[in-house]
Amino acid sequence: MGIKVVTIGGGSSYTPELIEGFIKRYHELPVRELWLVDIEEGREKLEVIGALAKRMVEEAGVPMEIKVTLDRREALMGADFVTTQLRVGLLDARIKDERIPLSHRVLGQETNGAGGFFKGLRTIPVILDIIRDIEELCPEAWLINFTNPAGMITEAVLRHTDFKRFIGLCNVPLGMHMGLSQLLDVDPERLRVDFAGLNHMVFGLNFYLDGRDIRGKAMDALQRPDAHISMANIMAEPWDPDFIRGLDVMPCPYLRYYWKHGDMLEKDLKNFENNGTRAEVVKELERELFELYRDPKLKTKPKQLEERGGAYYSDAACELISSIYNDRGDIQVVNTHNRGAVANLPYDCAVEVSSVITKEGPRPLTVGELPEEVIGIVRQIKTFERLTADAAVSGDRVKALTALNVNPLIPSDRVGRIILEEMLTSHREYLPNFFNTFKSKGEV
Amino acid sequence: MGIKVVTIGGGSSYTPELIEGFIKRYHELPVRELWLVDIEEGREKLEVIGALAKRMVEEAGVPMEIKVTLDRREALMGADFVTTQLRVGLLDARIKDERIPLSHRVLGQETNGAGGFFKGLRTIPVILDIIRDIEELCPEAWLINFTNPAGMITEAVLRHTDFKRFIGLCNVPLGMHMGLSQLLDVDPERLRVDFAGLNHMVFGLNFYLDGRDIRGKAMDALQRPDAHISMANIMAEPWDPDFIRGLDVMPCPYLRYYWKHGDMLEKDLKNFENNGTRAEVVKELERELFELYRDPKLKTKPKQLEERGGAYYSDAACELISSIYNDRGDIQVVNTHNRGAVANLPYDCAVEVSSVITKEGPRPLTVGELPEEVIGIVRQIKTFERLTADAAVSGDRVKALTALNVNPLIPSDRVGRIILEEMLTSHREYLPNFFNTFKSKGEV
Amino acid sequence: MGIKVVTIGGGSSYTPELIEGFIKRYHELPVRELWLVDIEEGREKLEVIGALAKRMVEEAGVPMEIKVTLDRREALMGADFVTTQLRVGLLDARIKDERIPLSHRVLGQETNGAGGFFKGLRTIPVILDIIRDIEELCPEAWLINFTNPAGMITEAVLRHTDFKRFIGLCNVPLGMHMGLSQLLDVDPERLRVDFAGLNHMVFGLNFYLDGRDIRGKAMDALQRPDAHISMANIMAEPWDPDFIRGLDVMPCPYLRYYWKHGDMLEKDLKNFENNGTRAEVVKELERELFELYRDPKLKTKPKQLEERGGAYYSDAACELISSIYNDRGDIQVVNTHNRGAVANLPYDCAVEVSSVITKEGPRPLTVGELPEEVIGIVRQIKTFERLTADAAVSGDRVKALTALNVNPLIPSDRVGRIILEEMLTSHREYLPNFFNTFKSKGEV
Amino acid sequence: MGIKVVTIGGGSSYTPELIEGFIKRYHELPVRELWLVDIEEGREKLEVIGALAKRMVEEAGVPMEIKVTLDRREALMGADFVTTQLRVGLLDARIKDERIPLSHRVLGQETNGAGGFFKGLRTIPVILDIIRDIEELCPEAWLINFTNPAGMITEAVLRHTDFKRFIGLCNVPLGMHMGLSQLLDVDPERLRVDFAGLNHMVFGLNFYLDGRDIRGKAMDALQRPDAHISMANIMAEPWDPDFIRGLDVMPCPYLRYYWKHGDMLEKDLKNFENNGTRAEVVKELERELFELYRDPKLKTKPKQLEERGGAYYSDAACELISSIYNDRGDIQVVNTHNRGAVANLPYDCAVEVSSVITKEGPRPLTVGELPEEVIGIVRQIKTFERLTADAAVSGDRVKALTALNVNPLIPSDRVGRIILEEMLTSHREYLPNFFNTFKSKGEV
Repeated sequence: MGIKVVTIGGGSSYTPELIEGFIKRYHELPVRELWLVDIEEGREKLEVIGALAKRMVEEAGVPMEIKVTLDRREALMGADFVTTQLRVGLLDARIKDERIPLSHRVLGQETNGAGGFFKGLRTIPVILDIIRDIEELCPEAWLINFTNPAGMITEAVLRHTDFKRFIGLCNVPLGMHMGLSQLLDVDPERLRVDFAGLNHMVFGLNFYLDGRDIRGKAMDALQRPDAHISMANIMAEPWDPDFIRGLDVMPCPYLRYYWKHGDMLEKDLKNFENNGTRAEVVKELERELFELYRDPKLKTKPKQLEERGGAYYSDAACELISSIYNDRGDIQVVNTHNRGAVANLPYDCAVEVSSVITKEGPRPLTVGELPEEVIGIVRQIKTFERLTADAAVSGDRVKALTALNVNPLIPSDRVGRIILEEMLTSHREYLPNFFNTFKSKGEV
Repeated sequence: MGIKVVTIGGGSSYTPELIEGFIKRYHELPVRELWLVDIEEGREKLEVIGALAKRMVEEAGVPMEIKVTLDRREALMGADFVTTQLRVGLLDARIKDERIPLSHRVLGQETNGAGGFFKGLRTIPVILDIIRDIEELCPEAWLINFTNPAGMITEAVLRHTDFKRFIGLCNVPLGMHMGLSQLLDVDPERLRVDFAGLNHMVFGLNFYLDGRDIRGKAMDALQRPDAHISMANIMAEPWDPDFIRGLDVMPCPYLRYYWKHGDMLEKDLKNFENNGTRAEVVKELERELFELYRDPKLKTKPKQLEERGGAYYSDAACELISSIYNDRGDIQVVNTHNRGAVANLPYDCAVEVSSVITKEGPRPLTVGELPEEVIGIVRQIKTFERLTADAAVSGDRVKALTALNVNPLIPSDRVGRIILEEMLTSHREYLPNFFNTFKSKGEV
Repeated sequence: MGIKVVTIGGGSSYTPELIEGFIKRYHELPVRELWLVDIEEGREKLEVIGALAKRMVEEAGVPMEIKVTLDRREALMGADFVTTQLRVGLLDARIKDERIPLSHRVLGQETNGAGGFFKGLRTIPVILDIIRDIEELCPEAWLINFTNPAGMITEAVLRHTDFKRFIGLCNVPLGMHMGLSQLLDVDPERLRVDFAGLNHMVFGLNFYLDGRDIRGKAMDALQRPDAHISMANIMAEPWDPDFIRGLDVMPCPYLRYYWKHGDMLEKDLKNFENNGTRAEVVKELERELFELYRDPKLKTKPKQLEERGGAYYSDAACELISSIYNDRGDIQVVNTHNRGAVANLPYDCAVEVSSVITKEGPRPLTVGELPEEVIGIVRQIKTFERLTADAAVSGDRVKALTALNVNPLIPSDRVGRIILEEMLTSHREYLPNFFNTFKSKGEV
Repeated sequence: MGIKVVTIGGGSSYTPELIEGFIKRYHELPVRELWLVDIEEGREKLEVIGALAKRMVEEAGVPMEIKVTLDRREALMGADFVTTQLRVGLLDARIKDERIPLSHRVLGQETNGAGGFFKGLRTIPVILDIIRDIEELCPEAWLINFTNPAGMITEAVLRHTDFKRFIGLCNVPLGMHMGLSQLLDVDPERLRVDFAGLNHMVFGLNFYLDGRDIRGKAMDALQRPDAHISMANIMAEPWDPDFIRGLDVMPCPYLRYYWKHGDMLEKDLKNFENNGTRAEVVKELERELFELYRDPKLKTKPKQLEERGGAYYSDAACELISSIYNDRGDIQVVNTHNRGAVANLPYDCAVEVSSVITKEGPRPLTVGELPEEVIGIVRQIKTFERLTADAAVSGDRVKALTALNVNPLIPSDRVGRIILEEMLTSHREYLPNFFNTFKSKGEV
């Protein structure tokens, strides 16, 4: 019969990655229908992507039907898998997420600090809304969320819904795995790394080659000068090798936003003055990509998409879907319910952790306690995620102010308040919980 | 028979506070002998203090014998209580603790961040040494440590000794209690506050007046514009009232070093340029105090001492000793072994917590879990304390670098390393663990 | 103004103990009004007790007013303290609790096993009902529950109400303290014991004399042949001294129902055949006591009451009330909310634990983890208490069957069901939750 | 090159099962050498088994070399996998384990209560000895222990060695899986059950068919009259269906020794009077089996072996070895280090739990908390296992007495001591730790 997949935010520039992923795996993962859903504001992009997707499928000769719609509820009916890659407020909102904090000399990264905070406030209510639709229209479907900030969103789903078939996904652990394989010059298949932590704050804890513990070797490699394993969209400042030695685990590249916050801020401020924010760079990249996508002769994913920063995005998503569909039982890293997997984080919180993927969905491996060296910052960011999730759902401004201020990237409660007020005003239309007078519970 | 008390660091400018405290309480706490101990570098100050102490005792007409010595082991023999208020490297070391970080635009406060880190590295080995002497010479004595950073030192004692009669003490909770009484305009005796957290990161969690829960009233008062309850030695920047409302607990003034780190840094930098560091201000204050102390007509504690910042210091110390001696069973706030008192901090770590004080020493009250709003930063600083304690004992530079870098006040591992190296060099003579080639285990 | 105390179950033969306790302490605890409340079935006894109480008060010359009523709600209005010492179904119900299990060769003790289980089912709904009245009529009153099974009832209150001013009280720890003082031949005031565990499953964990740790001495004394510290109402079988040595803590006498279950059962069965159950013995004792009480010349508590088994009952209750009223801050053992006090029991369960008693009520001391030797059985009985509490409130027979069967004194699920059915039938009138067809959720 | 397997206790009547298992899987698990090791007392049986094994291999035509030796150290050299299926003291010791308790009307089952306790005392030192040899001679080998009591032994290895490559294995979970498949009438491959608990005290917690949660269906099936899923060697008394409904999980058959202890004891006592103990029945069965094994015409595993009670034994062992060797990543149930897998059992204890099996060995799935209904008894038995492990290693009689007495099957400390003394005397030659005057630390 085949599988029905629904991709919400189908007009994203990343979608061709996903299409390619499904095409490549058609023999094992027969996607019968792929529904690309978007909202009115994204109609034009959705149509471009839809047309490209059809050309790609035809070129590949697989019997996968591409459907394009603005009607989310129609699309969801009977779905087997739903993926979300939406961006509330589009890139213009992200530009504000970055510009406003930077104008106060505060980091405005889109998943950490003030930027991530506001992205969370805008996105969480939309995801909870999608979940309500799924519970009604396709309750057996798995929801695989790729939208950032993935950790905060998973936390919100755990705290504010009873939906059990939610999986938060991120390509960072896969990138770390690939990067370490390269550093060690071994086939990635031979390497196994236990990952645990939070989204964008994940650590490689143990390292095995062909089943043998290679901690010493791996940690040595990570101290080499060429070890800036990093995502294309983070400026790859090298770590102090002794600091890595002291941590004795592999930090994810986003840790730079904390353990190098001063340097990262300086760079961002310089870029801000010169080229504008990362969001503006991305906006230009997207414009160029869509120009390519419009070309009726383009029938495959264009190379330029890789520069966009989504390496392994398609692999992460398609492998996860395929492992569930095929009951494969391999180990992948997902954002899910902790329940003791990371023993020194709260039982009921969201964690990003190596998990076995079967028909029953992900089941976290027991990774024990995070080492003392890293549990401190992880616990702190978990507080930030939980308070933000609660603020997003309640629309309570006091909660929002508190959530923002406990983030270590905010230099003071004084500045936190200024940023909060400017951003609430700027994003007003995407924050109905905060502006609905009946719902708003706190006043700042 | 009376009690034998030994005060290590007896040449401190604070000592007259302590003398006054013992004199005032002689009827309930008959201190027969008070030994003031110091090291060769402090001989002159010790003599000044010793002479003043004798005049004070004589003036008060209590039969308390004052002994002055540089021989710590002689003093400890048969002691009932030992208090430590030493400063390894004297104020000159503190000046470096502040100047070096500030020269890299990093906060150099003496109990937090890089300053506290280095004070910890210098002090922990000395305290462990004193404990070894106590275990040999007066194993039934209680060691009451007033030396900063008190939390880190308590952590080190728990991790690296089996000594059970150690109590870390700080005047901050008492100051918070007094400040809140004043805000509420009530007799401090009628108010009860449950405190929990870490040293210089402690929170008032619950508030009772005459046995009745007054959380609402207390939290309202703490949001008033006049609520800058603070220690004289912290610049009393007001908190955002809504942030306090969101926290729903009373933060200790030192939290400003984290939740206002940007503003505090700016102020410190400005002061640094204008008047020099806080340490230099204190040094001048001390010079003036000792001039007063030398006056043979001075027979009581001079008023000027209060400006020095040790409000309630004497009360905290004398009340603790008296409650143990008299099996009083009142509630005081001390640094001690957690064992579940704060349920979401590690079982075996040091906490600052409301405790019943009896002949058996302090027994923490069960305060439950710290609220989500504050557990994040507390857990992070606990990591910093634990790693610093281990670095101090091992003399391992990699551990030291890691400990310093996980502190959120360090802007980057790059800057952390520069500060570490400059300070290791500057404090070399007080860090034998790091410069003894046989002991040093790591290389930076 | 004085204090208003309400005693529910005022017609109990124990009440003269309480009256005597209040009279003795009138100088520190001025009870202005003491209301004795009972139900219609207890009217006659209540009147006897009321008359005796009035004679006692008059004889003592204290201005304490005794009020006697069947109207609980009238009595509760404006109360400061409420004590409960009721017995649902009177001694006749207890006779069944003992006879029915014994008839199947199963222990029928009134607080453990099948007997305690049924006492719990009958009593919990009544206590919850009283709490609803208190919340309405005197929400600031403390409810001090002396009714057995005190642990199960405290658990039920924690799980099924939001009432915070509940304290479960038992005279067993006081009896253990007194017994150990006697064994050590020291004034009880000089001895301090840390108690923790569950009601009727409590342990003396640490032992101090004049502030000094005397574990060795205390444990040696507990192995002496004369160490059958026990309550009058438990047949005092001696423990194997080496078993006590291995435990390295002081078990409460009721542990015999588990660690000597075979021997206890044999004795009970023999008694059952000869003199009838303990309940029948008590019934006869009570009859004799009430005969004495009726004597208008009796103006003080008669000596014979002591044989009844309530040693220290009055002291425990009056001391607790006095410490709250006088904000005394002494350490007493109560049943209350765990919250980490006993670190290896669930955070949210009821424990019996040494607590400081102030105006704010009891605050448990942090006692750390129960030793491995005893945590196993304690955790098992906690399961029994929790399941029974839930069964009592829900009236669910499947839950009830499960609760009963997990108790280690039940020899098999087969026998458990037989006892359940016989007792449900026998106690039918006192188990409305199980027989109200609308409420009953399970069917056996 | 192929694999080298060493089977200690190779003379066991179960060995042909294992041989058959290896033969069947030769294509995926090329065992080059299988060493059967035994001790002098088992020489004759070892030779019979060795000869049969060779005939079986020859008949099957696989190039697996069978080696037979009494020299354990020679065998271990360079081994890849070591399996242990030894029985210290042979069946004669088991006969005593059963007879002595039963003579005092106490259950004498070989893995629970007094029988399991003594089997543990005899076996733990031998396993620790084997581990010392492995650490020296083949440190990369996996030790797969099939010897009972497997939970206690795993606990002892965790508490008293640093050996990481130990896996405790039992066929009970596989039997439960098969039994439930049969009850549901579905292919076992389609069913997935999450198992967690302790050895012989394990529970099926969640049930999935083709990835779908079928708890309701599974629990209904388990309440059917034909649901006596059981091992051949346990008398299959049916559970009360409502009790199973109340538990809402699937208990392993051995729970009957606790939740039906009265009935099981009656049966055992009756059998004891009629046919002798289970051990004697088994001894006769073994005699018959060895008669068959001696027949030179026998070239395959005889059918009669199945009656012996080891169903799935060979499958469990061979599948585990094959999954490690082939990095298969399937889910199997093993005894291993908890580390949070079962969140409400101690972090550092041994648990039996569903685990992914890869080249790195087993990694437990995070199963969350055991339900309240079962955690009580599980925690109690964990105490018994831990105390027994410590007693076995220390040879301390006080510890031994305590361990035995906390087991709920022991009717009283009085009887516990009698059994302890009789059994210490009876098993004297297999308990050197207790009879070596230099080592013995306690005296009873």
